[in-house]
Amino acid sequence: MIENEIISLIKDADAIAILPHVSADGDALGSSLALALALNALNKKPAVYFEEEMPNTYSFLPGREFAEVYSEKPDKYGLVIALDTGDMERLGKRAAIFNDADSTVNIDHHTTNTQFAQLNLVNTNSSAVGELIYQLIKMMGIDIDKDIATCLYVAIATDTGGFRYSNTTPVTHQIAADLINNGVDVSYITQTVFETLSLQKVKLMGKAVESLELLENGKLAIIKITDDLLKNIGAREEDCEGIVNIGRNIEGVEVAVVIRQREGGDLKINFRSKNYVDVSAIANRHSGGGHKRAAGCTIKGDINDIKEMLIKEIQEVL
Amino acid sequence: MIENEIISLIKDADAIAILPHVSADGDALGSSLALALALNALNKKPAVYFEEEMPNTYSFLPGREFAEVYSEKPDKYGLVIALDTGDMERLGKRAAIFNDADSTVNIDHHTTNTQFAQLNLVNTNSSAVGELIYQLIKMMGIDIDKDIATCLYVAIATDTGGFRYSNTTPVTHQIAADLINNGVDVSYITQTVFETLSLQKVKLMGKAVESLELLENGKLAIIKITDDLLKNIGAREEDCEGIVNIGRNIEGVEVAVVIRQREGGDLKINFRSKNYVDVSAIANRHSGGGHKRAAGCTIKGDINDIKEMLIKEIQEVL
Repeated sequence: MIENEIISLIKDADAIAILPHVSADGDALGSSLALALALNALNKKPAVYFEEEMPNTYSFLPGREFAEVYSEKPDKYGLVIALDTGDMERLGKRAAIFNDADSTVNIDHHTTNTQFAQLNLVNTNSSAVGELIYQLIKMMGIDIDKDIATCLYVAIATDTGGFRYSNTTPVTHQIAADLINNGVDVSYITQTVFETLSLQKVKLMGKAVESLELLENGKLAIIKITDDLLKNIGAREEDCEGIVNIGRNIEGVEVAVVIRQREGGDLKINFRSKNYVDVSAIANRHSGGGHKRAAGCTIKGDINDIKEMLIKEIQEVL
Repeated sequence: MIENEIISLIKDADAIAILPHVSADGDALGSSLALALALNALNKKPAVYFEEEMPNTYSFLPGREFAEVYSEKPDKYGLVIALDTGDMERLGKRAAIFNDADSTVNIDHHTTNTQFAQLNLVNTNSSAVGELIYQLIKMMGIDIDKDIATCLYVAIATDTGGFRYSNTTPVTHQIAADLINNGVDVSYITQTVFETLSLQKVKLMGKAVESLELLENGKLAIIKITDDLLKNIGAREEDCEGIVNIGRNIEGVEVAVVIRQREGGDLKINFRSKNYVDVSAIANRHSGGGHKRAAGCTIKGDINDIKEMLIKEIQEVL
């Protein structure tokens, strides 16, 4: 069992570096800090290296005292563990730490994982890497205290969209039950992680609704976001994330599109579908990619011309 | 144990009426239909009586074949079970069925429950009545098939805001795990129950953002909704539900207020707070009520005058 080999490496190690992927999300951050807290309880010397500053949303997470933003290559580590990282590229500059280590471990749940370490624990049935870290901590016999439980709960809750995505399994809920039993403050995490939006994001959502057009008997929703609009609101590119769901979630809509104008004239297109349209096929025509129900591409051209072109392409498959 | 007494009544009964509360929500509907399906599996004759038509959102729920909207008093029932109903008033016209029955049972989780039946199973630690029905079905040894599991999952998921409210316990998650194990389609339910909004609701949300004002260094958010606005959009009063959370969820906001003008000139005010302001105290001044973090009242007057008055009252406690 690969878990036992990993545990044996951990027991033999002293200083251990933990590397979440670049632009670390709730699962990458929560799993990394939970593992650091657990290793500290084992009297190891854990260090989490982030590629960037941690997003504000997650600044309440316990275990931050073991984390730092990578600036220059630290001393060689005996053991390095990459978390939630599909391939070496997703380690960014911190690949230097990984490449330098005596032993390397890769714990992940992405189907695309390239098995890039000496020991690879990749379970694509896990909703979150948080599930795998939970099981590893249990196997090591470490007590899951409130701090570790909080980190793991955030990892799992964020990667399942709050237990709402199809990756949510009975195991996901069983683990959540145990974590809450160990002291997780569910409503605090809900408020902090799921219910706090920046004013800019809220304003952008309002403007997106204003620009929303329903076409094809309400089956197609299109939202346009111009670069000027973003600038006027003071919103950032990352605030556009999820805007396409405003269209998708409207009753009767099958395909939702967001056309976002970027500085320089490129148009970034996001597609979502609900039940039957394969939007990745449309994105592929324009050198984009994705899944049947969520895809994207980048096109050059006039925003209104491109909108009309996309409407025609979508009409054919609705 | 009260559960055993209830099970013994069920085993002795033939036709059994099930009564969820008026304006039945996901928990009331899901619990009622799950119980009907389970009683049918026991070869009983269950009938669920609703006070009103079931909301469209829930029309996918299994067990609808056992349900009807109450029109006139049916023949006397040997056993009537009220679900998720705090007091007799919440049975509406269907109190007639309840009062006529030989035996009455009340299964609920509201702290305010008046113990109005012969047998009262009231557990205020249960996140949803769905949890209590789950346990009852288990105790009766009835197999939880996909249909029953779906009804119970909807009951629990809606009353916990998708496992996000503070009423979510380890038991809640353990039950969810078992229900998913029995075939619940998590992503279908997510999409249908949590992610489908009417176009009118989405437009109202857009207009609400447009009217949003941030005052007091961003600690107070105020949204005005005029009667004309609702009419122009074609939105209904129920579409205003939750609009106050748009303000509350903005980073840094402590108090959010929605002032909604109704036909006739009344102003309906909703208050929410995040961490420390007791909004029920403000609502109480105007003959309203509620909790510390969620309250409301109705005031007569000019919408702008009332807004200025409320701002002053809130300033004092911010």
